[in-house]
Amino acid sequence: MTFTFWFEFASTYSYPAAMQLEHKAAERGIEVRWQPFLLGPIFQAQGWNDTPFKLFPAKGRYMWRDIERVCDRDGIRFRRPSQFPRSGLLAARIANWHAGEPWVPAFVRSVYRANFEHDEEIADPQVIANCLAELKLDAAALLEEGQRPEAKQALRDATARAEALGIFGAPFFMAGDEPFWGYDRMEQALEWYASSGVA
Amino acid sequence: MTFTFWFEFASTYSYPAAMQLEHKAAERGIEVRWQPFLLGPIFQAQGWNDTPFKLFPAKGRYMWRDIERVCDRDGIRFRRPSQFPRSGLLAARIANWHAGEPWVPAFVRSVYRANFEHDEEIADPQVIANCLAELKLDAAALLEEGQRPEAKQALRDATARAEALGIFGAPFFMAGDEPFWGYDRMEQALEWYASSGVA
Repeated sequence: MTFTFWFEFASTYSYPAAMQLEHKAAERGIEVRWQPFLLGPIFQAQGWNDTPFKLFPAKGRYMWRDIERVCDRDGIRFRRPSQFPRSGLLAARIANWHAGEPWVPAFVRSVYRANFEHDEEIADPQVIANCLAELKLDAAALLEEGQRPEAKQALRDATARAEALGIFGAPFFMAGDEPFWGYDRMEQALEWYASSGVA
Repeated sequence: MTFTFWFEFASTYSYPAAMQLEHKAAERGIEVRWQPFLLGPIFQAQGWNDTPFKLFPAKGRYMWRDIERVCDRDGIRFRRPSQFPRSGLLAARIANWHAGEPWVPAFVRSVYRANFEHDEEIADPQVIANCLAELKLDAAALLEEGQRPEAKQALRDATARAEALGIFGAPFFMAGDEPFWGYDRMEQALEWYASSGVA
């Protein structure tokens, strides 16, 4: 049984989850699989051509107020990005292609902070290169690798797996077969997994 | 400043909120305004002709699993209704017309339990009459009154106020001007209001 964190780099509520998951999981002795995917194709399949936070303006206005409050409560720096949503395609291809490698969680956090703390354009390869270089990784090689057809296809496959699992938003936690949607459910998902006795 | 609980009788997540709000608020010395409204017109305004839990089946499947887990965790009896959503129009007209009267919270809880604990058809006036009679109220008079044009108009006005406030789902809590959406936010909304110093 596996505990999987499904996240989308454009997703606001995935940001506080990504920032806190590793230590919250470690406290309970849980190893996490960090699994990026894309929400765009999943939204498109249900007839949406954009994020619900733009399609439904009242929901969007509320989300910005709520994420600010949530980050403030949980001690996470947050600045509303000047562009939303930003494409996390390149970052997701790299994180997916290297899923399971020990540097991936730190890379993911670095990309989230670029977007939601420093208001940087994460669709820009230079921004992603900086996130990789910060971790003393070979940015040029990883960027090149992430753009290869097999890395592109691997991310498409991951998104198809997400859809097959019934994932419709992010963050999403799979505690074995048990689904939990949203940052609000992160602790509950970890507790569920820990008390299932296999952690 | 007022603490208002906006709820829709068809809403699954409004049920555990309605069951627990009164004592959670009383613990903090907060008086709650119980304010029914209809989600239907609000969903229609954003292009939905049904609940998102039916329009988006993955979301619906998840919701049924999640509400069961949430109610189980919080000690609230829950049985998945054989019909969903059920129209709470009649109950909402009555609760809105008498908003502020001391029996309204108990009536609201009784209607929620009919729907989500006893699987009763709350669109049936007889079911609503039973909920009223349980509280030793004059069911016939209240049902008749709730169907008058002015009671119908008053509920339309309440729904228009909800929309003007940016309310897009239920339950929704207004701690003064501060908006909180969802059962997950109930405690946070009460804390916010209590610490604002006017409770």
